[in-house]
Amino acid sequence: MFAKSLRSVYFMSRPVAISYKSLATSTSKFHGKPQIDEQVAKLLELKAELSNAGEDSNAAYSNQKFTLKTPKGTRDYSPQQMALRNSVLEKIISVFKKHGAETIDTPIFELKEVLTGKYGEDSKLIYDLKDQGGEILSLRYDLTVPFARYLAMNKITNIKRYHIAKVYRRDNPSISRGRYREFYQCDFDIAGAYDPMIPDAECVRIVFEILKVLEMPSFVIKLNHRKLLDGMFEACGVPATSFRAICSAVDKLDKSPWEEVRKEMVEEKGLSEASADLIGEYVQLNGKADLVDKLLADDKLSKNKSAVEGLEAMKLLLKYCDLYGSSDKVLFDLSLARGLDYYTGVIYEAVLLADNASSSEEVSVGSVAGGGRYDNLAGMFDPKGRQVPCVGVSIGVERLFAVMEARKAAEKIRTTETEVYVATAQKNLHEERMRLCAELWAEGFKTNTNLSLADQLFTSVGVKTWILPKLQTNLQEMTVEHSYKKNPKLLQQLQHCEEYGIPLALILGESEIKNGVVKLRNVTTREEVEVGRSKLADEIRQRLQGGCQNGS
Amino acid sequence: MFAKSLRSVYFMSRPVAISYKSLATSTSKFHGKPQIDEQVAKLLELKAELSNAGEDSNAAYSNQKFTLKTPKGTRDYSPQQMALRNSVLEKIISVFKKHGAETIDTPIFELKEVLTGKYGEDSKLIYDLKDQGGEILSLRYDLTVPFARYLAMNKITNIKRYHIAKVYRRDNPSISRGRYREFYQCDFDIAGAYDPMIPDAECVRIVFEILKVLEMPSFVIKLNHRKLLDGMFEACGVPATSFRAICSAVDKLDKSPWEEVRKEMVEEKGLSEASADLIGEYVQLNGKADLVDKLLADDKLSKNKSAVEGLEAMKLLLKYCDLYGSSDKVLFDLSLARGLDYYTGVIYEAVLLADNASSSEEVSVGSVAGGGRYDNLAGMFDPKGRQVPCVGVSIGVERLFAVMEARKAAEKIRTTETEVYVATAQKNLHEERMRLCAELWAEGFKTNTNLSLADQLFTSVGVKTWILPKLQTNLQEMTVEHSYKKNPKLLQQLQHCEEYGIPLALILGESEIKNGVVKLRNVTTREEVEVGRSKLADEIRQRLQGGCQNGS
Repeated sequence: MFAKSLRSVYFMSRPVAISYKSLATSTSKFHGKPQIDEQVAKLLELKAELSNAGEDSNAAYSNQKFTLKTPKGTRDYSPQQMALRNSVLEKIISVFKKHGAETIDTPIFELKEVLTGKYGEDSKLIYDLKDQGGEILSLRYDLTVPFARYLAMNKITNIKRYHIAKVYRRDNPSISRGRYREFYQCDFDIAGAYDPMIPDAECVRIVFEILKVLEMPSFVIKLNHRKLLDGMFEACGVPATSFRAICSAVDKLDKSPWEEVRKEMVEEKGLSEASADLIGEYVQLNGKADLVDKLLADDKLSKNKSAVEGLEAMKLLLKYCDLYGSSDKVLFDLSLARGLDYYTGVIYEAVLLADNASSSEEVSVGSVAGGGRYDNLAGMFDPKGRQVPCVGVSIGVERLFAVMEARKAAEKIRTTETEVYVATAQKNLHEERMRLCAELWAEGFKTNTNLSLADQLFTSVGVKTWILPKLQTNLQEMTVEHSYKKNPKLLQQLQHCEEYGIPLALILGESEIKNGVVKLRNVTTREEVEVGRSKLADEIRQRLQGGCQNGS
Repeated sequence: MFAKSLRSVYFMSRPVAISYKSLATSTSKFHGKPQIDEQVAKLLELKAELSNAGEDSNAAYSNQKFTLKTPKGTRDYSPQQMALRNSVLEKIISVFKKHGAETIDTPIFELKEVLTGKYGEDSKLIYDLKDQGGEILSLRYDLTVPFARYLAMNKITNIKRYHIAKVYRRDNPSISRGRYREFYQCDFDIAGAYDPMIPDAECVRIVFEILKVLEMPSFVIKLNHRKLLDGMFEACGVPATSFRAICSAVDKLDKSPWEEVRKEMVEEKGLSEASADLIGEYVQLNGKADLVDKLLADDKLSKNKSAVEGLEAMKLLLKYCDLYGSSDKVLFDLSLARGLDYYTGVIYEAVLLADNASSSEEVSVGSVAGGGRYDNLAGMFDPKGRQVPCVGVSIGVERLFAVMEARKAAEKIRTTETEVYVATAQKNLHEERMRLCAELWAEGFKTNTNLSLADQLFTSVGVKTWILPKLQTNLQEMTVEHSYKKNPKLLQQLQHCEEYGIPLALILGESEIKNGVVKLRNVTTREEVEVGRSKLADEIRQRLQGGCQNGS
């Protein structure tokens, strides 16, 4: 019966195929979108009906005949991974906040048109949503284009914001090398028309602070300027139409030796050997302010307006980096080019360094932050083309997570913050356990409820109408757990503490209950002391806080 | 030219429409999926070509001729909204952590098959991704099904986890009523085979604590049990095949009066009037432990195994709620049914109450949390059908955000945490400003770098190998900003402080620089004092900390 009706449909559907084919052939391929849309919508509707019907009539089949996995290029994050990631992100966010940044969020998908024409060749990596009727949507590819759309849509002319969120790229990523189709981006940008290099220098300082706070042992923040690159290309005789192609060849210098890059310039991109050699001399230079001065005196560059503008900007930036205390980690590097087209001024990239086993030099082990100035992107979304100058940096958090994971592989990471575990030593004492948990939960809780949101004002300096976005740290609060089993073995309860790194255990037995005391156990040292019920909370607090002070 | 070719396509496309129609009519609507799929794929391909071609050949047209908006049913979150949301989420997370929960994350999309057959009628609301080759994917619809998939895939038999993330529903939401297509869910679940009602009672306690910590003035957590509902239906003569339909009618009692629900039962669902009236008597009951006892003595219910099991479970849960200190907010309510099919035991729902203007009663203003026990869901993903019993709760954070936004509408919410703003009183002092900022940034920073991750151990109790997931609060850290303009007017700088709620301003003028001092200004009171540069950091810290202590 099923086979038969299937075949009849097969024949029935032929006329569609034929008339469709004739349509496709004879209309060329440039017009008729509305009509095609209409047909597609109708067919999709029928398809949806068919698939729903299929599910209903064949429920057994739909149940568990597929491999249990996450989609290609994606993964779940375990509690261990989340604990590490959250600790890294908290540190990064603390640096953003220290510099007065706000945060925003945007939807995970955008109208497809918003993303169109922004990513060049990489547009093919954009995930589209199925057309289920209504708008045509795509998953966001980065956070920069949605930010530019946000600025234009809300007519915002200045903001300092960070945005940490997942983005999506239908790449064929090498998961072994830590690249995924769903991954976090972590962007900080300053939008607004300000004076030269002041916001730019703060972005560099922020990268500096983040890598310091994450204790990256050795890193360098390379700086360059798009105007200097353009001027240098011009001075070396590169035709203006080849600037971008030559720039992208230079961008490969972090991975390939000069000889290969030169070959690409000459053989693939048709540059003259003389021009290539001139470029070769410049891009091998790096240094600090003295290099800027040397280049300002350079025969060719000093005659080029764009190069001089770039060099003057670099000089100012290096001076500000000095004032901001980040100059020991910055390096003016003429080989830095950055891939993206939209940069219009300073560009920078931070790389981690490691000792080279075969020499005494430090070598780069990968870029962990990059960014630059892009003054024209937001204007692409404004109906009147009004520009909002922007400078920003994207922290390569996925790579930083991987570095931290490798570094902490030998250590055990706590996934909970439980401080106290309430255990019982005999059977049928679970209600006593519950009662004690509730007492300790309420300990922290009382303080919390007393401190109302309205009270959490910045009263220190009399600003009475402001609400602090941050939750007041409440030292009284206690994190307390117990077993969900009525009669767990004492050994199992103590093993749970060791497994999860819970520092304190409270042990209740019949004699303790009778005497109104609790046995307080230091899980690591296994020392035990008896504490009266009424003094228990204070005793716990003292042990937890006292220890923290010793530790810091 | 364009109009002409459009018309020709219009005529060309007619045969498709006609043959399609005949197809749709004559095949009924149950089979032929592969063939239809093929046609749809071809049409989609052509459609894609058309739209790409359109973009290329008509770049000017594609550039900004669309409305600048977020997709239907979605929105951006402004810094103000983010500040409020983050403060609410931090409070909720602090409660989860207080109870020892870990957190996980899963991809935003799943293989479509994972979601298939889990949401009944609502499956039509699932967002599918376009088939761009490879796997067929859908955006997650909730966090519960991905959690069950995660448990089965990783063979996890017990975990206590929370998960806060966005989910997607292609609904036609009433945005005016705060419903969106992209919105946050906030789930807490305990998976594992434990003793009856111990984890269930902790979920109730967590809802209690969250609503307390968010200072919801009046709320009630309604409790019921699916086994009691089933037993009650059986005892009232409802045929087993109608349990689910009658249950969903009962679920409407929070919005509709009994008369309407009764009508639905009798007229739409074919229940006898006698049965409906019996149900009517039960579902109007609510109370505490005494009601359980009364029902255990009830003629009909006491003879029904399922009802007695449900009542015994309720009795135990109410006792545990008492032990956990949450019983003054719980209410055993026989009208609570919950929509989802997968619940197998206790169900609960928290509703906010408000004074009824026309009477002295408190009325529900909406559900803000709901959940229950679902022991069979994870087993649906296990190839051998192994069950992992689960109980959990979903906090209705979107509604809570809306309540908080309304409550705080009159107040100004800080979007940054800047404590100190460095201002200058004359021209050309921007470098002095930068130098002072760097000094203060370094103040906090020094402490941070001294305190390495390895040092941030839980040394209080000697657990040396554990890394605390939480960043140690560093009281030394200072958030400091200044203007990105070289020569901003002093008035503008002070206005910025007032606008952003920055409590302290430091003012540098030529005389201050000469004398090695800074003018420290309380932004609200406008009091100013001169402080020596060397004592500045300590003075600031004292003012900020001293104030916080007064405020708490």
